[in-house]
Amino acid sequence: MDFKEKVAESYKLIQDEICRGLEEADGSAKFQEELWDREGGGGGRTRIIQDGSVLERGGVNFSAVHGTLPEPIKKSFGVQDDQFFATGVSIVIHPKSPWVPIIHMNIRYFELNEQTRWFGGGIDLTPHYINTADAQFFHRSLKDVCDRFSADFYPEFKTWADNYFFIKHRNETRGIGGVFYDRLNPAKTSLDYEDFFSFSEELGRSFVPIYRELIERNKNRPFGEKEKQWQLMRRGRYVEFNLVYDAGTKFGLETNGRIESILMSLPPYANWTYNYKAEPGSDEEKTLRFLKKGVDWISL
Amino acid sequence: MDFKEKVAESYKLIQDEICRGLEEADGSAKFQEELWDREGGGGGRTRIIQDGSVLERGGVNFSAVHGTLPEPIKKSFGVQDDQFFATGVSIVIHPKSPWVPIIHMNIRYFELNEQTRWFGGGIDLTPHYINTADAQFFHRSLKDVCDRFSADFYPEFKTWADNYFFIKHRNETRGIGGVFYDRLNPAKTSLDYEDFFSFSEELGRSFVPIYRELIERNKNRPFGEKEKQWQLMRRGRYVEFNLVYDAGTKFGLETNGRIESILMSLPPYANWTYNYKAEPGSDEEKTLRFLKKGVDWISL
Repeated sequence: MDFKEKVAESYKLIQDEICRGLEEADGSAKFQEELWDREGGGGGRTRIIQDGSVLERGGVNFSAVHGTLPEPIKKSFGVQDDQFFATGVSIVIHPKSPWVPIIHMNIRYFELNEQTRWFGGGIDLTPHYINTADAQFFHRSLKDVCDRFSADFYPEFKTWADNYFFIKHRNETRGIGGVFYDRLNPAKTSLDYEDFFSFSEELGRSFVPIYRELIERNKNRPFGEKEKQWQLMRRGRYVEFNLVYDAGTKFGLETNGRIESILMSLPPYANWTYNYKAEPGSDEEKTLRFLKKGVDWISL
Repeated sequence: MDFKEKVAESYKLIQDEICRGLEEADGSAKFQEELWDREGGGGGRTRIIQDGSVLERGGVNFSAVHGTLPEPIKKSFGVQDDQFFATGVSIVIHPKSPWVPIIHMNIRYFELNEQTRWFGGGIDLTPHYINTADAQFFHRSLKDVCDRFSADFYPEFKTWADNYFFIKHRNETRGIGGVFYDRLNPAKTSLDYEDFFSFSEELGRSFVPIYRELIERNKNRPFGEKEKQWQLMRRGRYVEFNLVYDAGTKFGLETNGRIESILMSLPPYANWTYNYKAEPGSDEEKTLRFLKKGVDWISL
């Protein structure tokens, strides 16, 4: 088994582990699986959980695809080789309760040849209502994973997430960020590909304990129409980010990926309210004030 | 009053006329107006109608802006001049009833200098449920307007609309199309700018009678949960088109336009259902089968 197969096998197990953990956290719904083949080579396992007691809809996708790189992407990478391999696990969860945050995770490995290959990924959190204690817990957990590999990881990847998960036309971040990294390769560090691989595995394995904790803290808090409406508006923003800016979504749409797997990140229900103004002093307004880059959530 | 001022004044009156007509058609809701100024020059009148008996939300915007063209747009136009003027009326209506179609209209005039100036615009219809008699009425009405100016207009602009209002990643049209035209200028025809201006005015004036007829035909038809759910899913597609493909939306987001005016095209509520399959033989399936380019609605 060569390196890329080893990565794909490990990511498959991580998908299994995460699905099990989410089913336990939900307590009632089960994942439905669809296997799909990609015309140019490879395929994936799309797993969707719906109408649970905690999770309104969530997807945990694994894919391992290979084939010929489309010409524009080859150009943008500045490479000659065009036989690529890519594998990853990708997650978006939309919970029922407005008090439970939306979460997104992705770990992936891309390979063109021995020299041109890299790891990418990240985890970021989009609370409908920002709770600074939860935000601190979330960022501290990610920092713990990062620090086991390099003291540079968390500060660097946290800033990257702030810049990446940013809705430019609203001048607001998608949520409280997290970590985001791309094209990790050993040239710039003392780490090697095995280290990056382990980092991605540990990040993947941190997903369930982190999200379960956030679920447990918030799932039983009662909410009404006002909170539900706000949740739908925040989901509207999520749609805007994913359709206008998200690189993975754009890549998928442009390369004729499996559309239902790509767009599983979109929420079941969303709302756009014209010219909404949050009430001064409200939880909604407080949340909007926090949707900025550069907040130091850990020592807030 | 020079030509561009004359166009802007006429478009303002058309906005007034359309708002009056829509208020009458709705019977209960009234438009709320917001005046705004553009930092670089000019401004607009955004008018929104909400929670009516027929119209769930609709926007009828007028703007007349001028200033310095952003560098990338200057480049894409291949021009030296950079002092532009642009005016237009832009409409999107999301009705309450799934039996009443979503409608969009835009008429606009753009000017850089005596040589580089043009009219653009169009009307297109997005029925949640396609009804061929309504589709025929809609296209015949547009053809009538077109034919008063040139026999080439309808066939050319109808094809243009089919190609423009197309959701590539779904391989389906947004709705039943209509007419779409851009950069009309006299070089290619026996018509002059005054003719194009009149054409845009007549198209603008055709909006109310066309949409009122479609409202009257359908507004009292009862509907249930199933039809409402389908409407929310079709609105989800509308969001996908507007955020991923629509040139006007992209232009607005990239040039820091007034965000609430640009995104008033998004529906109040929308839904994404994972892997939805229409029941064979259902009205939903029939609609999906019609969402193709090149349907000859008039002689169907």
